[in-house]
Amino acid sequence: MLGISPEDLLKRAVVDASKELINESISEKLDLQILGFDASNKVVKIADLGCSVGPNTFFAVQNIIEAIELKFQNSSSLEFQVFFNDQSQNDFNTLFRSLPPSRNYFAAGVPGSFYDRLFPKSSLEFAHISNSLHWLSKVPKEVVDRNSPAWNKGSVQCSTGSSKEALRAYSAQFKSDIETFLTARAEEVVPGGLVFVLTAVVPDGIPISQTYAGAFYDVLGSCLNDLVKMGVLSEDKADSFNVPVYNPTPKELEAILKTNKNFNLEKMEELPQSITNAQITPKGFALGGRAAIEGFIKNHFGDEFADQIFNHFITKVEANSSKIQEKKHNHLNMFITLKRVVNCK
Amino acid sequence: MLGISPEDLLKRAVVDASKELINESISEKLDLQILGFDASNKVVKIADLGCSVGPNTFFAVQNIIEAIELKFQNSSSLEFQVFFNDQSQNDFNTLFRSLPPSRNYFAAGVPGSFYDRLFPKSSLEFAHISNSLHWLSKVPKEVVDRNSPAWNKGSVQCSTGSSKEALRAYSAQFKSDIETFLTARAEEVVPGGLVFVLTAVVPDGIPISQTYAGAFYDVLGSCLNDLVKMGVLSEDKADSFNVPVYNPTPKELEAILKTNKNFNLEKMEELPQSITNAQITPKGFALGGRAAIEGFIKNHFGDEFADQIFNHFITKVEANSSKIQEKKHNHLNMFITLKRVVNCK
Repeated sequence: MLGISPEDLLKRAVVDASKELINESISEKLDLQILGFDASNKVVKIADLGCSVGPNTFFAVQNIIEAIELKFQNSSSLEFQVFFNDQSQNDFNTLFRSLPPSRNYFAAGVPGSFYDRLFPKSSLEFAHISNSLHWLSKVPKEVVDRNSPAWNKGSVQCSTGSSKEALRAYSAQFKSDIETFLTARAEEVVPGGLVFVLTAVVPDGIPISQTYAGAFYDVLGSCLNDLVKMGVLSEDKADSFNVPVYNPTPKELEAILKTNKNFNLEKMEELPQSITNAQITPKGFALGGRAAIEGFIKNHFGDEFADQIFNHFITKVEANSSKIQEKKHNHLNMFITLKRVVNCK
Repeated sequence: MLGISPEDLLKRAVVDASKELINESISEKLDLQILGFDASNKVVKIADLGCSVGPNTFFAVQNIIEAIELKFQNSSSLEFQVFFNDQSQNDFNTLFRSLPPSRNYFAAGVPGSFYDRLFPKSSLEFAHISNSLHWLSKVPKEVVDRNSPAWNKGSVQCSTGSSKEALRAYSAQFKSDIETFLTARAEEVVPGGLVFVLTAVVPDGIPISQTYAGAFYDVLGSCLNDLVKMGVLSEDKADSFNVPVYNPTPKELEAILKTNKNFNLEKMEELPQSITNAQITPKGFALGGRAAIEGFIKNHFGDEFADQIFNHFITKVEANSSKIQEKKHNHLNMFITLKRVVNCK
């Protein structure tokens, strides 16, 4: 396991835990005739969106392929084409060089944001997105507007100290982004095709600040405030920093998905909570978090402040270790299966 | 033009010169009905094989798309998906970050050798390959076998000093590679689909050593021999070095293409010779050549010898400048259109 981060281990655990749910979805919800797999169409096209550089993306894709092979009696006549997507800043060179040599699919990389169109019309049978939909397309503009009631002074995301208006702005941005995501996928996924979503949620009724992710952003926010007090960062600079990330509650997510006209919500299940408990330590959490948000920190504060911010952050995470550990259970991963509606549009 | 190598300029000139021939081919040879573009199929899938990092690959693809739009009355209903292929060692990160922002196609990168299958069955309408098919899949094994009559002692490719047997081994490898290439493409390109090939050839009846490319390998071979005499390289090491590259004659190429059962040879034309004359200087030629074969040199001799070999090479190219210039006219670029046979296999 050398060289694999705790963040990666967690993602792997989430991917592994979803295997059985993917199997069930494909076994119960997939109509081979609608997709034409028993007749003319012999190529199954699968996209992994927000794939990063591997290896978790390869396991996820393999799970989907194995489930299709299980379902389809005559699977030896099928060919698989897999599209690995991430932002064009992703390291596709590393991804391509680490593709499994004995893979049974044709591989392609697709650069771009999954909030935009990435594929031609009706060109995918399956899409999969894991640990990515909590990244918003942007920071809601109100939360960094000093004149708005949603101004998120002193916080870097939805956490302790955020006003109701700030929370509402984050939630609205998330809703709008999911709708944008599904509108793009509705064009790309064939009728009857399936979209699998794995995403972290905040349990209903629990404030974000009482969750693991919330604790991360609370510590980061207080760390920036410390550096303002120490005269390292200007107050303006710290106040105008927010991270474009949001974890909805299951109810909130379900409501958005249920009103979508292009996809049916076929399955929505919590993954076993043991996944989270088993994998993360506070230090691992801090390092994993650093990898995830370092780009935002550097963009906003400049390269020269990133180390200073993260060094202070790690010290604070260690000092607050037991408080963070307490919040571990308040972190759920949901597995969702969406089916592209057949007679629509 | 700063930062663009003479090699790139030449490639660009070749791509530009082929534009009209691509237009003609698509206008005259493409059957929209067979491809289904007037009915169900609204997605045109194009592969550029051996694409490198751009920008020439973008110009080539744009030429094909514009020709299709010209031919197809109702082109606004079409969507284009372009697959950029090269070896997995290619810098796809640079390619993806330099994609034209205002492109009218969906882009994907496909890592792998074009001598293997790269795409699912019948998944492409067009393939394009420019300045790449002269790279063999490997050095023919006889030419580096001391006990074979084809042993290519003192030469690094087909050039002055190569035996007939060595030339025959190179030619046979080329034939076998083109057949492998076309067998893979026959699976991937739909019936009626077109493959465009741009490749350098040696005029019929002229020995390779009298060509521009031949001159390059002659100077490189004699440069290695100098370094053996100077005690820098061992004779064994120098003798066992050959470059997997071959430029056929037009007749040789035509014979291979005409016997292929999966593709019809629809067009085979020389590009205007002025292209070559206008673009290359001996130093540009040496630098462009270095970029092309540096990997082979480093692999065989080790990184530490590469600079020494190329420094000596550039000195020799400059000293032999006028001899090389004389051979400029013996360098032709061919444009070829192949059409996937409809009722075959």
